Amino acid sequence: FEHLTYPIEMDKDDIRTVQGFYVDAAKRARTAGFDIVYVYGSHSYLPQQFLTPYYNKRTDEYGGSVENRARFWVETIEQVKEAVGDDCAIAVRMSTDMFMGEAGTQLERDCLPFVEMADELVDVWDINVSGISEWGEDATPSRFYPSGRLLPWQKRVKEVSKKPVLGVGRFTSPDLMVEAIESGSLDIIATCRPSISDPFLPKKIDEGRLDDIRECIGCNICISRWEIGGPPLICTQNATAGEEYRRGWHPEKFDPAENADNDVLVVGSGPAGMECAMILGKREMRRVHLVEAQDDMGGIMRWIPQLPGLGEWARVVNYRKIQIDKLKNVEFIPNKELSAADVQEYGAEIVVIATGGYWAPDGQNGATHDTIPGADASQPWQLTPEQIMRDGKEVPGERVVIIDNDGYYMGVSLAEKLASEGKKVTIVTHLGHIAPYMHFTLEAPNQHRKLYKLGVEIVTLHMPTEIAQGGVKGVHVFDEDEHAVEWAADSVVLVTQRRSNEALYRELKDSTGIDGLREQGITGFYRIGDCEAPRLTADCIFSGHRLAREIDSPNPVMPLPFKRERNVIEKGAAPERELAAV
Amino acid sequence: FEHLTYPIEMDKDDIRTVQGFYVDAAKRARTAGFDIVYVYGSHSYLPQQFLTPYYNKRTDEYGGSVENRARFWVETIEQVKEAVGDDCAIAVRMSTDMFMGEAGTQLERDCLPFVEMADELVDVWDINVSGISEWGEDATPSRFYPSGRLLPWQKRVKEVSKKPVLGVGRFTSPDLMVEAIESGSLDIIATCRPSISDPFLPKKIDEGRLDDIRECIGCNICISRWEIGGPPLICTQNATAGEEYRRGWHPEKFDPAENADNDVLVVGSGPAGMECAMILGKREMRRVHLVEAQDDMGGIMRWIPQLPGLGEWARVVNYRKIQIDKLKNVEFIPNKELSAADVQEYGAEIVVIATGGYWAPDGQNGATHDTIPGADASQPWQLTPEQIMRDGKEVPGERVVIIDNDGYYMGVSLAEKLASEGKKVTIVTHLGHIAPYMHFTLEAPNQHRKLYKLGVEIVTLHMPTEIAQGGVKGVHVFDEDEHAVEWAADSVVLVTQRRSNEALYRELKDSTGIDGLREQGITGFYRIGDCEAPRLTADCIFSGHRLAREIDSPNPVMPLPFKRERNVIEKGAAPERELAAV
Ligand SMILES: Cc1cc2nc3c(=O)[nH]c(=O)nc-3n(C[C@H](O)[C@H](O)[C@H](O)COP(=O)(O)O)c2cc1C
Ligand SMILES: Cc1cc2nc3c(=O)[nH]c(=O)nc-3n(C[C@H](O)[C@H](O)[C@H](O)COP(=O)(O)O)c2cc1C
Ligand code: SF4
Ligand code: SF4
Repeated sequence: FEHLTYPIEMDKDDIRTVQGFYVDAAKRARTAGFDIVYVYGSHSYLPQQFLTPYYNKRTDEYGGSVENRARFWVETIEQVKEAVGDDCAIAVRMSTDMFMGEAGTQLERDCLPFVEMADELVDVWDINVSGISEWGEDATPSRFYPSGRLLPWQKRVKEVSKKPVLGVGRFTSPDLMVEAIESGSLDIIATCRPSISDPFLPKKIDEGRLDDIRECIGCNICISRWEIGGPPLICTQNATAGEEYRRGWHPEKFDPAENADNDVLVVGSGPAGMECAMILGKREMRRVHLVEAQDDMGGIMRWIPQLPGLGEWARVVNYRKIQIDKLKNVEFIPNKELSAADVQEYGAEIVVIATGGYWAPDGQNGATHDTIPGADASQPWQLTPEQIMRDGKEVPGERVVIIDNDGYYMGVSLAEKLASEGKKVTIVTHLGHIAPYMHFTLEAPNQHRKLYKLGVEIVTLHMPTEIAQGGVKGVHVFDEDEHAVEWAADSVVLVTQRRSNEALYRELKDSTGIDGLREQGITGFYRIGDCEAPRLTADCIFSGHRLAREIDSPNPVMPLPFKRERNVIEKGAAPERELAAV
Repeated sequence: FEHLTYPIEMDKDDIRTVQGFYVDAAKRARTAGFDIVYVYGSHSYLPQQFLTPYYNKRTDEYGGSVENRARFWVETIEQVKEAVGDDCAIAVRMSTDMFMGEAGTQLERDCLPFVEMADELVDVWDINVSGISEWGEDATPSRFYPSGRLLPWQKRVKEVSKKPVLGVGRFTSPDLMVEAIESGSLDIIATCRPSISDPFLPKKIDEGRLDDIRECIGCNICISRWEIGGPPLICTQNATAGEEYRRGWHPEKFDPAENADNDVLVVGSGPAGMECAMILGKREMRRVHLVEAQDDMGGIMRWIPQLPGLGEWARVVNYRKIQIDKLKNVEFIPNKELSAADVQEYGAEIVVIATGGYWAPDGQNGATHDTIPGADASQPWQLTPEQIMRDGKEVPGERVVIIDNDGYYMGVSLAEKLASEGKKVTIVTHLGHIAPYMHFTLEAPNQHRKLYKLGVEIVTLHMPTEIAQGGVKGVHVFDEDEHAVEWAADSVVLVTQRRSNEALYRELKDSTGIDGLREQGITGFYRIGDCEAPRLTADCIFSGHRLAREIDSPNPVMPLPFKRERNVIEKGAAPERELAAV
């Protein structure tokens, strides 16, 4: 809600006051034991706002020329250095491009001169790009940018500065890191998401355990939680992210399970099943069989990476495949579809059902909680995502209407794919935006640009009411008189909602029952992932991980409570009311 | 993100487990000392989901007939009553209408039969309406509904039940409360927002101090913060809401100021100035003069309540006017515009500038941080909100384009007003939605419906680039080639951003300076509200209140720090890991 916050132009007193805040904060950081203090600009923090015409409209000595626009920042660095420079290194993070033309920060016009002005004062430069409203240009979704996309900007700064330059760029590959250093683009490699995905990334490189690296896939699910502002951070690749303290989960250490003398059968090797089998393996269960009906593991993550731009998402499968391969006690068994009887006769004491989910073929959706009249993906001209991506079902005709009641990446990804293949695509959603969740993953702006360029027609706030050969009818969700609107269509794609593949689970639970299973020696019977309820891949992996972590708890179905208490800093550790005295 | 959460159908074990959670929670509530335990349904909580076909698609004994759909809730009430019914009263809150036709909860079909089934078990009924996605039907914005709009539903339940019935309905008027009781609609009046706005509402009624009631205006700014999920709750009418603990502010008690032997001049009597003068009066400052250029107090809140539906917002002014009138030490002086020299000669030791703000006449906006070429509200066919609402400037011609870069109520309110008056209105915004902030105040759905019905054309994701007589040009914000789009217009309304009326403040601060003012006996010099930076009315009032509360602090410009520590419940107060044992 930046647009509801109207800024105030600081006068000289305000400037001195705020610079005083920087000095005080730096001193507190020193007191708290920090060795490096940032005078931070990137992501449109105040010093960068002074540097940038988009924010700085001043006509005094703090606005206008680059010297003037740099003045606030240079002065602030000076004051902080004066205060703590003997004890702490001074780092400066600067965005070197806002991709906004004249108004935004520019590398040559603003940043390189700034580096020359401040180089003496600064101990290390941290160089990135972007303003705050499109910080996906910095925290790049893999959908749009490869690793290291900031290197050209970082290299230019290194050419000008005499000080070390560090920088991010979704670095997960040691080869790329080495190249960045050797080509003179960077002195120090920094990682944010790669370290969320794998906190032991540097150690694994150091020890040469390269195939143990759990590479970030660049999905920005972590950021989505941060952007929403409420829920705790999660990570698609790393189920332990944010759980280290509150659940006591170490990302790399696993206790042997108390019931490790049991055999486990995991049915289905999608993200949840793979993760569960892997962690059970690391917890030294006697034998873990991961059984799959298809010819390889991965589940939906075999075809999702084939959507435009999502290639890196295949790392979800690759990492786990390699790990499972290394675990002597985990065996992967492909091409084997198990019936309920097969499961009961399998001989494992613990059974985990992870049979995944599928897109509704009948238009069932979360808006009306009902099907859509006429929706039927057994028709040749109606298609679900799996039919297109996995089964190779042909999309007939020229005009395609995609019905999107899901609001994340599937609808727009298929729109992009089909439009790129030459179809005339209309995407219809009951929501106010297409793919609103992609706003939180920072993918929205570039996805919008792509669809605009491809000529995809976007219809928001409309709910389809009838699907027929030739066209889709719908109504505006706020039209109380429900006038019909119609979109011509040779084929219709149903991205309405997903359902669980729960037939096997239900047959075992309802026909045989928990007691019946127990009589047959099955003492633990669980389901995980989409098979329980369709959800984000991150949540599927979490679900498999959580079960494996707690397989020896009193009741593994029910997550153990986690710590909710926060550590409260002792009174007196910081001087009270110090702000008031400024 | 309900639409990304696909639910799971509970089996019988799940049902028993969740009912066990209810029982456990009720016992914990009893342990914690509560006298009343709710088995809550409203706002689409689980028991209400069982009752409602929109959510309940079951074919077993928990779905289908109303008896079946009621079964989960009735059983749960039974179990909770069994567990704690001797110590705690059992309350049930039920929504009696979801306004969704056949699918939603219905009064006659579902709720009255449910009351008959459960009446014996329940000690008090709490009756409201709405589902979760449009809970503005319950927590009604005054824009769409008067107080007591739920009374017809509440009355029907009272006719069927033998137990007391309570209910909400934005009750602030004792007369309406009495009528609700006497007409047999309710037994007990409940208030949520009216108690946020005035926690001493019951006491003031009890003591007959009716004109001291600080009536809720039904703006739902409180709810907006809750809906956003992050920031603490604020209230337009009550600056102390949420500040009782962390700042130690009692809503009704004020300490005499340590510098009460000073005179205060408050310049400008908009929301911030009124609040500041009132609180300074209650803090027993020797003399407070509230000086206003216009003929009455209220500032922008004199004309904003004339926008469609916003009549109740005038309570912001009315409450403060009455209070100020009662304070012997506060004098309101209308029709007096003060120059910088006047202020210096006034004789007050403390000066507070509260001269408000105004809508930019040149198209300055938060999207481009620039003006819009051609924007100029001195033209007869270009208008700002004040010109229309306050100055009575005529909107010429038939076709009106409203440019909305603000995203809250002003653009859509003017669209509604002008369309109701017969204009052909197009509203153009760079944002993805019109009035996105109204999503958080729960005003969006009905505002959308209204604008749809009035035939207002809505253009999102477009930024105007040029305003000329006859038409407005713009571009799609995600069109990298910037193709021009044009909308015909006889007149153009500029709802782009607001600016501060800071001329007086700047002249005093910059020309005379703080030291110069001190020499003239002015020892405190402050600005508040929109004059400092344009903001929500709630934030303006907070700003005036905060200054008055801290007028005797070491540096009143700088807010005193507030408590950030949370109270941590003692370990052992609740049994650990009890969930795991379920
Ligand atoms: C969850 C999350 C939160 C972040 N929060 C901030 C922040 O508060 N301030 C900031 O300057 N950068 C923030 N960043 C951006 C990172 O500093 C970094 O620039 C970005 O993630 C790109 O680096 P990477 O490719 O190594 O992830 C955040 C990144 C993530 C993933
Ligand atoms: C800030 C705020 C938060 C609320 N949160 C909840 C909630 O968590 N659960 C709920 O059932 N109702 C909630 N309500 C709705 C109230 O219970 C009540 O039904 C509604 O405000 C209408 O009553 P009123 O007109 O007296 O305000 C909330 C209301 C407000 C103002
Ligand atoms: S959530 Fe996705 S982008 Fe974020 S760290 Fe994990 S894998 Fe990387
Ligand atoms: S914020 Fe508005 S609606 Fe909420 S309690 Fe205050 S006055 Fe009432």
